[in-house]
Amino acid sequence: MSSSKGDVASKTPLRLGVAGLGTVGAGLAILLRDNADIITKRAGRPIEITAVAARDKTRDRGIDLSALTWHSNAVDLASDPNVDVVVELIGGSEGTARSLVEAALKAGKAVVTANKALLAVHGDSLARLSAANNAPLLFEAAVAGGIPAIKTVREGLAADRLLSIGGILNGTCNYILTAMRETGRDFSDVLAEAQELGYAEADPSTDVDGIDAAHKLTILASLAFGQPVEFDSVHVEGIRCIGALDLTFARTLGYRIKLLGLARQSERGVEARVAPCLVPEATPIAQVDGVFNAVIAEGTFVGRLMVEGRGAGAGPTASAVAADIIDIARGNTVPVWGTDVTTLKATQSRPASEWHGAFYLRLSVADRAGVIADITAILRDCGVSLSSMIQHPSAKQEQNVPLVLVTHPTDESAMQAARQRIAALDVVSAEPVLIRIENF
Amino acid sequence: MSSSKGDVASKTPLRLGVAGLGTVGAGLAILLRDNADIITKRAGRPIEITAVAARDKTRDRGIDLSALTWHSNAVDLASDPNVDVVVELIGGSEGTARSLVEAALKAGKAVVTANKALLAVHGDSLARLSAANNAPLLFEAAVAGGIPAIKTVREGLAADRLLSIGGILNGTCNYILTAMRETGRDFSDVLAEAQELGYAEADPSTDVDGIDAAHKLTILASLAFGQPVEFDSVHVEGIRCIGALDLTFARTLGYRIKLLGLARQSERGVEARVAPCLVPEATPIAQVDGVFNAVIAEGTFVGRLMVEGRGAGAGPTASAVAADIIDIARGNTVPVWGTDVTTLKATQSRPASEWHGAFYLRLSVADRAGVIADITAILRDCGVSLSSMIQHPSAKQEQNVPLVLVTHPTDESAMQAARQRIAALDVVSAEPVLIRIENF
Repeated sequence: MSSSKGDVASKTPLRLGVAGLGTVGAGLAILLRDNADIITKRAGRPIEITAVAARDKTRDRGIDLSALTWHSNAVDLASDPNVDVVVELIGGSEGTARSLVEAALKAGKAVVTANKALLAVHGDSLARLSAANNAPLLFEAAVAGGIPAIKTVREGLAADRLLSIGGILNGTCNYILTAMRETGRDFSDVLAEAQELGYAEADPSTDVDGIDAAHKLTILASLAFGQPVEFDSVHVEGIRCIGALDLTFARTLGYRIKLLGLARQSERGVEARVAPCLVPEATPIAQVDGVFNAVIAEGTFVGRLMVEGRGAGAGPTASAVAADIIDIARGNTVPVWGTDVTTLKATQSRPASEWHGAFYLRLSVADRAGVIADITAILRDCGVSLSSMIQHPSAKQEQNVPLVLVTHPTDESAMQAARQRIAALDVVSAEPVLIRIENF
Repeated sequence: MSSSKGDVASKTPLRLGVAGLGTVGAGLAILLRDNADIITKRAGRPIEITAVAARDKTRDRGIDLSALTWHSNAVDLASDPNVDVVVELIGGSEGTARSLVEAALKAGKAVVTANKALLAVHGDSLARLSAANNAPLLFEAAVAGGIPAIKTVREGLAADRLLSIGGILNGTCNYILTAMRETGRDFSDVLAEAQELGYAEADPSTDVDGIDAAHKLTILASLAFGQPVEFDSVHVEGIRCIGALDLTFARTLGYRIKLLGLARQSERGVEARVAPCLVPEATPIAQVDGVFNAVIAEGTFVGRLMVEGRGAGAGPTASAVAADIIDIARGNTVPVWGTDVTTLKATQSRPASEWHGAFYLRLSVADRAGVIADITAILRDCGVSLSSMIQHPSAKQEQNVPLVLVTHPTDESAMQAARQRIAALDVVSAEPVLIRIENF
C-alpha cells in the first residue's frame, strides 16, 4: 500500500477484490453502496469493488454485481492489476482462503479478512509475510462481528499492560444458553430451533464445541499479551454437556451460564481457555444475552473495560470489514500483533490443570443413605472444600436425583481428580457435569 | 509530525511536553515509566517526557520529574525545540489551555489533550487549525476516560451511518444516583459524601448540572454525525432536582434513573440533550453503576454497540492519553472530526421542545378529593395520555402526598405545557419533577 496522508483530497478510488459473496460479501457490497457518501469522506477517496470471486454468478444477492470482473479462481484476485486490496470472505484456515491471503501479501497487496480460523491457526506466519512484504493484514471482523474489539485492544489499550482478555465470543452458544434458561428446554431442542432460525449451522460443531470461540480467543490473547498464542494449546470445551437442569440450578445459586473465552497473563505465562462458566447474575457479562457478544479486557492502568454488540450477521460484519478498508485508505495500519513481528515468539497456553478457581459439580445420584457421605469424603481427601450443596428430594420417588455441589476456590487438578473418583462410584449414575465459576 | 511507517525500528524518542501535572499528568508520567517496555514496542520507538509545565515544582507526585525542563509558562512548551508533541492536561475551554493548544498547532506540533470543554466549545476552529498546519489533534481522554470511545466511533464505526450516540458520560453523577438508589439518601447528603471521597469537586456544578456530560456529548455527536455540533445549542439538565423519592418510584415502576447524554440524527437534523432519564431496569445501560461510564452507539449496519469502563481517574485517563501518543508515534492519525474539515459546517441541535417520548411526572399534592381529576383534566386538554399512576395514601396524615404519573409517548412541548399548568394549581405544593423515559 502506498497511500499517504497527502492523498486525502484526491479522488483515485481504492479498488477492492472480494473473494466470497455469501451473506457477508453481499452485505459488504450493499454497505459500500448505501454508505458511499460517508465512506468516501472518511476514507478520503472513493472505495469500490472492481473484482469478485464466487461460485455462483447468477444468484440473487440483493445487489447487481454482474458488471464487475469475475474470477473463477479466487487466488487470481491477488494478481489482478485492478485490485489494490484483497478482501477474503471465504473462511476456513486452509484451502483457497489461505492460498489467496498468502498470494496477496506476497504481491504486496493489503488484505482484509473476516477469517478467524486462518488468523488463529496461521497468524504467526501471516504476520511475518505481512511485515516482509509491507502489506497490511487487517481482520477486525474476525472477532466479535461489528464490535471493534481488535482496534480496542491493539490501539485503544496499546499503552496498558493487559492482565486478562476474553468474554462471550460465540453468538450461537449464547443464543442457545439464553433460550435454554428462558424456556427450560434442553440443549438439543434449542439447537434444532436455532438451526431453523439460521442462528446455528447445519453442522453446529464449530460453534457448540467451542472451536469458533477458541479461534477468537487465540487472536485476542495474541493481541492483548503481545505474543502469538498457539491455537492448539488453548483448552476448549463446548456446551453440549450443559443440561436444562444446570441452568435452573445456576439461577437458584445466583448465577448464569455463559460460554466464556478467557485468557490471563501472569508471571507463569499465558493461560487461555474456552469453557462454559457460571458467572454471578449481577455482573455485566451475565446480562449479555441472545446472539450478542461481549469482550472484557482488564489492564493495570485502565481497569476493566467491556464492549458489547452484535457478534455476527451481514450488517455488523460488513461494517467491521469496511472500517478496516477505510483504515487502509487512510494509510493507518498497525502490524498484525501490534508490534514488530521479528521480536515476537509464539507461546503456548499453560495447561488447564494449572488453573485455580471455584467449581459447580452436578451429579445424578441414587436417592439413598450414605451417598453424600461418600462423595464429601472424596472431596475432603482431594483437598477440595465445599461452599454449598443443593439436594432436592425426589418428587416422583425416582431412583436417581440431582445433587449439586459448589466448591471454594481450589486447584483444577484436585477437582478433576475428585470428579474422576466420584464418577466411579456405584451410586453416581451419569457423567458428572463440572462447570467453573468465574467472577469475570 | 514527520513520523512515517519506515521509522518503526529507529530509536529516536518521541519527546513530550506535558502541561499540567495534577492527578492525570502525574499518572501519565508513571504510566510511561512503568509500561515503557510495551509502549516502546507498540509505538516503534521510545516515548519520553522532556519538558513540563506546572505550578509547583516541589510537590510530591509519586515520580521524580525534577530533571526535566520546567516551563513557568505552559504556552512556552509550544516553542520548545525539544518537544515533538504537546500534551495539554490543564483543562478549561479558555485561558492557558486554549492558548497552548492553539500555539502548538500553529507551530505544527501534534497535540494530545484530555480537555473536553476545549474540544466541545472550540472544536470547530481547532480542527481547522490542525488541518491547516498538518498538526494532529488527538483527544481520546476527553470522553469517557479510559474507554476508547472516540476511536470506536471515529475509526471502528467509520463505515456506518450512526443514528444515535450517547450514554452515561459523567461518573460523578452516576456515583451519586447509584448511591441515592442504594441507600435511600437525598442528593445533598450523597453529594457531600462524594466530595469527601474525591468523586466530586468542591464546586460540583460542572458535574451535577450536566455541563461536563454535555461537553462529552457534543464531541461524540460531532464525531458520530460527521459535523461539529454547537455546544451552546445542546439542551442541558442536571440531577439536582432528583429526590430520593424518585429513585424509589423508579424502582417500583421497573426503571433506574441515569443522567444520559443522548444525541440522535434524523432527517430533521441533530438532536442532542443531557438530562436525567428513567431507563428500563433490564437494559444494559441501567446496569452501569457507580463511577463507571458507558457509551452506546447505534448504526444502520452495525446495530447497537455499548462500551463500558472507568470514565475518570489517573490510570484510565493516562492510558487514553498514552494511546493517542502511540498513534502519533505510529503516524496513524485521523482528522479531528474524521473527515476533511473544509467540507464541514457546524450545526445546531434542534430544540428540546421538539423531542417526543414518554414522561415520569412526580407531584406533591394536597391529600384531598378532586385533585386527581384536576390534574388528569389538564393532561387530557394538553393531549397527553396517561400510562400509569402511583398514589400512596398519606401514612402520617400529612397535608401533601406524592403523586406519580407516567405518560404514553407524547410531544415534549405538550408535556411541558401540561407541567406548567399543573404546577400553577393550588393543590400542587412543590415544583413538579419531570423526567424523560428512554428505552436506550
